[in-house]
Amino acid sequence: MTVSGEQEERESELVARVLSSFEGCDDSRFLFLIQSLTRHLHAFAREVRLTEQEWTAGIEFLTATGHITDDRRQEFILLSDVLGLSMQTIAINNEADGDATEATVFGPFFVENSPAIEIGGDIARGAAGEACWVEGTVTDNGGKPLSGARIEVWEADAEGYYDVQYDDERSAARAHLFADEQGRYAFWALTPTPYPIPHDGPVGRLLAATGRSPMRASHLHFMVSSPGKRTLVTHIFVRGDELLGSDAVFGVQDSLIKDFESQAPGTPTPDGRDLSDQEWSRVRFDIVLADAARAPRSTSTARTP
Amino acid sequence: MTVSGEQEERESELVARVLSSFEGCDDSRFLFLIQSLTRHLHAFAREVRLTEQEWTAGIEFLTATGHITDDRRQEFILLSDVLGLSMQTIAINNEADGDATEATVFGPFFVENSPAIEIGGDIARGAAGEACWVEGTVTDNGGKPLSGARIEVWEADAEGYYDVQYDDERSAARAHLFADEQGRYAFWALTPTPYPIPHDGPVGRLLAATGRSPMRASHLHFMVSSPGKRTLVTHIFVRGDELLGSDAVFGVQDSLIKDFESQAPGTPTPDGRDLSDQEWSRVRFDIVLADAARAPRSTSTARTP
Repeated sequence: MTVSGEQEERESELVARVLSSFEGCDDSRFLFLIQSLTRHLHAFAREVRLTEQEWTAGIEFLTATGHITDDRRQEFILLSDVLGLSMQTIAINNEADGDATEATVFGPFFVENSPAIEIGGDIARGAAGEACWVEGTVTDNGGKPLSGARIEVWEADAEGYYDVQYDDERSAARAHLFADEQGRYAFWALTPTPYPIPHDGPVGRLLAATGRSPMRASHLHFMVSSPGKRTLVTHIFVRGDELLGSDAVFGVQDSLIKDFESQAPGTPTPDGRDLSDQEWSRVRFDIVLADAARAPRSTSTARTP
Repeated sequence: MTVSGEQEERESELVARVLSSFEGCDDSRFLFLIQSLTRHLHAFAREVRLTEQEWTAGIEFLTATGHITDDRRQEFILLSDVLGLSMQTIAINNEADGDATEATVFGPFFVENSPAIEIGGDIARGAAGEACWVEGTVTDNGGKPLSGARIEVWEADAEGYYDVQYDDERSAARAHLFADEQGRYAFWALTPTPYPIPHDGPVGRLLAATGRSPMRASHLHFMVSSPGKRTLVTHIFVRGDELLGSDAVFGVQDSLIKDFESQAPGTPTPDGRDLSDQEWSRVRFDIVLADAARAPRSTSTARTP
């Protein structure tokens, strides 16, 4: 569509007027954010020549997204996730640092105050699924073991649900443990299985309208912290999972795809646990934490208006 | 902040991956919209190097905006208004066409099925404020009168509220009438007065954080339609109003600023109405409607996902 010079000028003048309206803001970081957001939103509307009906559809979409959001469901995070904006924010704030382990999306299912387990303990605590032995080390960039590093782990059960998605008050398939003096850790978990993000709301309709699947590649969540180190929020994924190339939230990084080795029934377990006639799996995940000083910093923290 | 080439590549690759995820969309217009929006949102996050705390603040802001929105209050429209995005959408869809009257924002206070009045009738119907005689013509771009053109008018009362903002079921300060065979119209209304947009919610906090006023310049709303013509949604503003330069929603256009001539008590009224010892005002607003054929069209209408 061609736009006349006069029309271009009229639209640009409006953008300039909106940008200058914010200049009384005394927080320079917030001023930068709101002016940049305003410029990009206007550029979008002008580029697509947004119709009034489309604008109205956008208002209705945001309204529905707000109305389905409550204490148990965060549809705006889902929206950010499926637009890749959550993963982009992770990328911006976790620049590569030598061989430090890559980060990925946090997701909405982390819960504070998970139960503590000993090294070798089982995070499942009743959740259904195939047993999986997870082991590895936590070190710094120089290979020095990070004794006492805190390791939070959580995952969905074999039905595709996290404990908090059930109506009862169960706590399962989540726990935390601490690395030993050599930086080693190990625990029993469930072999990860794929599941859909909640897709019965506006975000699900957006995915359907664009022919996208709501499925997430199978994964196990980690959050690993140690004093002076950048806290790592990540997952490990299952090599061979057919969903690796189409993860609904763009969370997959090649370096995070691990070999979950399937073990035939009767194969002796590392700690002598008796799994009788069940298959189980094992995976190794060696974690490297970057120094905290490398985390990008903003000049100030934005206020929540 | 400098970003390494490796980091640039990582971020660009993510954008490309998200854009390609939408390629199964079978509505080419919707595909164009969602890809453009995605590109601009990622460009924003990368340009400002959005921190994880700022991302969280954004999610919380949208959530609060959704939760305050209900049948009587539309905080997402307010947000679009104060970012100038509503006015930009108006500008995009109402390109200048000869001397056709300029459009401005619709606002959230229009109500379907307003009462009909005769030419010379009073839209106030009990609303408080100074009487104002409004008159003019409705013509096409060639000066031809548009007999029977439908004129919807609505405004806030002297307290700064529209009828729908009161808890009772009142209908006041709104009506519709039809131009006569010479395209003429006239009615009694209230001299417009300034008022704030609702500012006790997230959008009010955004304005406060950036040092902006929530006040709208005084105005009277019009929506004018006639077969074969582009429907005009606009306001007229009051020359001399000190808020003309800082309208909270960027709705002011120079061509829409009119002379509301103050009349001393006792000045004879145009139709012999007895206003006893009260001041009143009068204003002329000649309306020119563009041909409907000039309205920009999109190749298809976006679905609401």
